Amino acid sequence: MVNYPNGRANQKSIVHKTPAASRGMHLEKELDHTNEYYHSLGKAIIHKKPTPIQVVKVDYMKRSAAKISEAYYKTPSTTDYNGVYKGKAIDFEAKETQSKSSFPLSSIHLHQIRHLEAVLKQDAIAFVIIRFCYYDETYYVEAAKLIDIYQGKRRSIPYSWFQENAFLIPYSLTPPIDYLKVIDSQLQKEK
Amino acid sequence: MVNYPNGRANQKSIVHKTPAASRGMHLEKELDHTNEYYHSLGKAIIHKKPTPIQVVKVDYMKRSAAKISEAYYKTPSTTDYNGVYKGKAIDFEAKETQSKSSFPLSSIHLHQIRHLEAVLKQDAIAFVIIRFCYYDETYYVEAAKLIDIYQGKRRSIPYSWFQENAFLIPYSLTPPIDYLKVIDSQLQKEK
Repeated sequence: MVNYPNGRANQKSIVHKTPAASRGMHLEKELDHTNEYYHSLGKAIIHKKPTPIQVVKVDYMKRSAAKISEAYYKTPSTTDYNGVYKGKAIDFEAKETQSKSSFPLSSIHLHQIRHLEAVLKQDAIAFVIIRFCYYDETYYVEAAKLIDIYQGKRRSIPYSWFQENAFLIPYSLTPPIDYLKVIDSQLQKEK
Repeated sequence: MVNYPNGRANQKSIVHKTPAASRGMHLEKELDHTNEYYHSLGKAIIHKKPTPIQVVKVDYMKRSAAKISEAYYKTPSTTDYNGVYKGKAIDFEAKETQSKSSFPLSSIHLHQIRHLEAVLKQDAIAFVIIRFCYYDETYYVEAAKLIDIYQGKRRSIPYSWFQENAFLIPYSLTPPIDYLKVIDSQLQKEK
């Protein structure tokens, strides 16, 4: 092991950053892989919604192909992911942060919080997946808990809060983010 | 009443085309209104998914605004509408036809049928809303029935089939397409 100037190895960066880099995937890709895996096994059907785009101008060069030549990104009015698992509606948002200390609430839009509230009232399984890239940890946060915090005056949620109040989703290769495990254990408790 | 050359009024076109025209809305808009109505009453949360678009080129003229200058429509891999009603996942596609005699199966993509099959296996409430514009009639077709027909060698489904096998959704102003009524009666039967 290399000796560092201050006499100790910077273990945290070695332990946590290497696997993330070698995996070479970001949260969205890992969720895509996870959802494809669930789909292939017939476990659940979950899709990422397309990004909403306002189309302004379309050129029809050929009859068959339309080229969009002017368009703008719109703010999403819902969460990014939804689908069905054992008849139950699933609805969630996914975010990652580079911060070591806290998750900034500004990265979730107010209307996304409103959407989570609305689907919770309809008894959907609603949650947010939050990754702390620095620690390479991915948490499952129940929507109800996040909504509570959002309604307070906090601008961010400290990292320690996640360790105490959220579920750490263990990393595996297939699937990378096995969030149905958390849902299963929650459904089990309800019984 | 105007006397027509052949001695009889073309009643069908008067009766059916006027209300549709005066409503001035197409199926998609009426479904938007319906879903907003359900949302406002807290009855169900159903959204139309954004159209999937492949973005090729983005110009950043200002820091704040990104202009998409080259993009193309992608074929959707799922149905257009989904959400949650009483905890149950809802998933459907909506199509209209100008034909008087039949609904062409080519207007529903094979991967949309596959998607309906997949969500049905997960116990979602899955269906297709089909409007015959000429008759100004909107039908609720259970996904299972449509999938059965799709697997045969038919290219279209005759209008009479809908009268016998699908549920006619009665038109009202609020909401224009009260499809939850059909779902309620189906859920009632299951009990």
